[in-house]
Amino acid sequence: MSLITPRTPPGTMELLPRQQVAFQRMLDTIRHGYERFGFVPVETPVFETVETLLTKSGGETEKQVYFVQSTGAIQQGHKPELALRFDLTVPLARYVAEHERDLAFPFRRYQIQRVYRGERAQRGRFREFYQCDIDVIGKDALSPQYDAEIPAVIHHVFTELKVGGFTINVNNRKVLLGLLDGLGVDDADKRVLVLREIDKLDKIGVDKVRESLTGTLGVTERAADTILSLIERRGSNAETLEALNGLGIDNGTFRQGLAELTTVIEGLRAFQVPEEAVRINLAIARGLDYYTGTVYETFLNDHPGIGSVCSGGRYENLASHYTKSKLPGVGISIGATRLFYQLMEAGLIKDGGATAQVLVTQMDPALSADYFRLASELRAAGINTEIQLDGGKIAKQMKYADRAGIPVVLLMGSDEKARGTATLKNLTTGEQVEVPLADLPARARALLG
Amino acid sequence: MSLITPRTPPGTMELLPRQQVAFQRMLDTIRHGYERFGFVPVETPVFETVETLLTKSGGETEKQVYFVQSTGAIQQGHKPELALRFDLTVPLARYVAEHERDLAFPFRRYQIQRVYRGERAQRGRFREFYQCDIDVIGKDALSPQYDAEIPAVIHHVFTELKVGGFTINVNNRKVLLGLLDGLGVDDADKRVLVLREIDKLDKIGVDKVRESLTGTLGVTERAADTILSLIERRGSNAETLEALNGLGIDNGTFRQGLAELTTVIEGLRAFQVPEEAVRINLAIARGLDYYTGTVYETFLNDHPGIGSVCSGGRYENLASHYTKSKLPGVGISIGATRLFYQLMEAGLIKDGGATAQVLVTQMDPALSADYFRLASELRAAGINTEIQLDGGKIAKQMKYADRAGIPVVLLMGSDEKARGTATLKNLTTGEQVEVPLADLPARARALLG
Repeated sequence: MSLITPRTPPGTMELLPRQQVAFQRMLDTIRHGYERFGFVPVETPVFETVETLLTKSGGETEKQVYFVQSTGAIQQGHKPELALRFDLTVPLARYVAEHERDLAFPFRRYQIQRVYRGERAQRGRFREFYQCDIDVIGKDALSPQYDAEIPAVIHHVFTELKVGGFTINVNNRKVLLGLLDGLGVDDADKRVLVLREIDKLDKIGVDKVRESLTGTLGVTERAADTILSLIERRGSNAETLEALNGLGIDNGTFRQGLAELTTVIEGLRAFQVPEEAVRINLAIARGLDYYTGTVYETFLNDHPGIGSVCSGGRYENLASHYTKSKLPGVGISIGATRLFYQLMEAGLIKDGGATAQVLVTQMDPALSADYFRLASELRAAGINTEIQLDGGKIAKQMKYADRAGIPVVLLMGSDEKARGTATLKNLTTGEQVEVPLADLPARARALLG
Repeated sequence: MSLITPRTPPGTMELLPRQQVAFQRMLDTIRHGYERFGFVPVETPVFETVETLLTKSGGETEKQVYFVQSTGAIQQGHKPELALRFDLTVPLARYVAEHERDLAFPFRRYQIQRVYRGERAQRGRFREFYQCDIDVIGKDALSPQYDAEIPAVIHHVFTELKVGGFTINVNNRKVLLGLLDGLGVDDADKRVLVLREIDKLDKIGVDKVRESLTGTLGVTERAADTILSLIERRGSNAETLEALNGLGIDNGTFRQGLAELTTVIEGLRAFQVPEEAVRINLAIARGLDYYTGTVYETFLNDHPGIGSVCSGGRYENLASHYTKSKLPGVGISIGATRLFYQLMEAGLIKDGGATAQVLVTQMDPALSADYFRLASELRAAGINTEIQLDGGKIAKQMKYADRAGIPVVLLMGSDEKARGTATLKNLTTGEQVEVPLADLPARARALLG
């Protein structure tokens, strides 16, 4: 029989166990952070019906969709009825519309699942990746206070992830759209195009942005100056709010956006988020026109090159394709696969080690029943314990523990058995103690630190 | 715009949040149980290359495969290159063969992911469902002691799942195959067919099995009697082993199987598994010829109709399609989606409630900054806390807590604020206490029980 070369499908992230432990820890931290704020879990099937999934006209999205078909359906020449989800937002919309009557609103859900995009495979681009989303969905209305709560969740989660300093950038699309309107850019489509240009500021620089604004987009020099100097100024959040107030722009959208932005900034103190963790950044607009008010992007202070690690915003209506109910919401998403990959590259994530905390070795095959019993006792005391059932040379067993990343080994020979003791050794520190059998769990726990 | 009827794809299990919390708890229990025994996590992509996935000749499996194709590939008339995994065993084989050099053997992995089968949709049959697998893979060899450890893992996990009494049925395919050989059924293929018939004993009864054995399969009346009376007898495990020993069958396979079965049963005491939790059942053979030695099936004592809730066994070589290395292993699988569904139907699983433990209500809008601060303090103390930011009538907020399943609400009006207190109310018991603000976390925890 000729062998098939085993290979992971391209564009996916497959980890060795020690990395998987670290990744799992990251997902757990995110999940427990979300739960700390009372978000409830939702999981949806990996595929949706094509009808559900492809409601959006967007050609780009459709090109990236993976269709799913059984053998039978392919043979019969049917068109695919199912496709893999490409984000968690469409499934959420479908879920909320479908289960509307059974949900308590405001509906706070988190969803940590993989999504799929038929991307050309290239470094750092994934065809399969985890998204960790939260959204709060209101029925008919949703207080802007929820926009203020979101930075508190981001702050909690990224603090727990221990990835160093980070800054949550906040903006409100209404502020700039209203400002543009007030400055005489009276075409709504053009205002959206201006926002998109401004969103490129970090990438292409202020001169190029000014050029397109005053060029093809026909913004006056004076208006462009006002906007760009506003965006370029660095100051405290209070100063930025003051500068916006000081513009004296009499435009409803602008005033509403400014009020919402002020709510978010004022909420920080009440939500115990340090002022320096959040910064008003008028340049961020998020590419998606999906967002209608508050928008968020989060950057690691020491690794700006990674780009935003947590983004999202406020939207007017979640599920207009599926229900007549008005469902406004606000949410964020962490792209965990990409984040993990980049944190590994940046050396910010270490291997997670083993799940086992203690390896019970078999020094003397005659004592195997003792080893089994000791392992059971450690487990009963809540310590993850593995036992080398193959036995063999003790050096080989120690090497296995080291390779697998198990921090502590238990050794017991006939001498120790006669004394009613066993030896615990921490493989990292080399620390070694002989302890009475009755004290094993407590001493193992102490040695694990 | 005409609305699209939102519907979950058929054959999938989608849960409401309170059920999802219960399901998540079940998966966590299984996972932590596996980790307690030192199994390490592995996740593989949802799809494999078609080449990897369809190595097995089995026509049934291939008919059930879901193929995956991007829009571009379909348009260009390409054959599908990817397909959704239909179990976790093929991905494990590919994974171990691909990463062989980087793994520590014996390799103990757990994998909790969804698998896909293009089944005809019907009640209780799923096209997408969770499998929770563990396997121990050896390089070249793997001690039969690992077969003895597996019931300890099953026992631990199902005890933690709190689903009532259960019995782990154990057998060894070599025992019956060797016995049949010893009794003169000298055709190997026929012996396998006999095993499959015997596996149907619970379904079709002893008479029908005897009929097919002595009929088409050509087993002598005497041999059929010997086998069926062995299988039908009820006794302790020790008695069954004694009866097998007493047969005086001089057959290598039989003796090896009996020795392995004895190792498993003798291991129970050492692994602290109660004798009554495990029962030798010579009838179980597992339909799959994949298994070569020990096999396991687990039944809930009070719900035999559910069928086996945890099955598996020993196999000779995991990854012969992908590597020349010999990789024997032993493993089990819990079909968590089906199990959850059936436990719900049997009333053995209750809704999981909310993730939030406390809802901070907003009695008085003027005090919102206080509410935000109290919520943050509860969170900092490790209590999952949600806050009703929309405010509104207190009755509506209480109703929300009840609907969402949040057990405790915090109430504070201006009187309480003046006294430096807040009221905590347990919505289930009705218990209500007014407590000083400094004691809130401790008292909330006490009220949560």
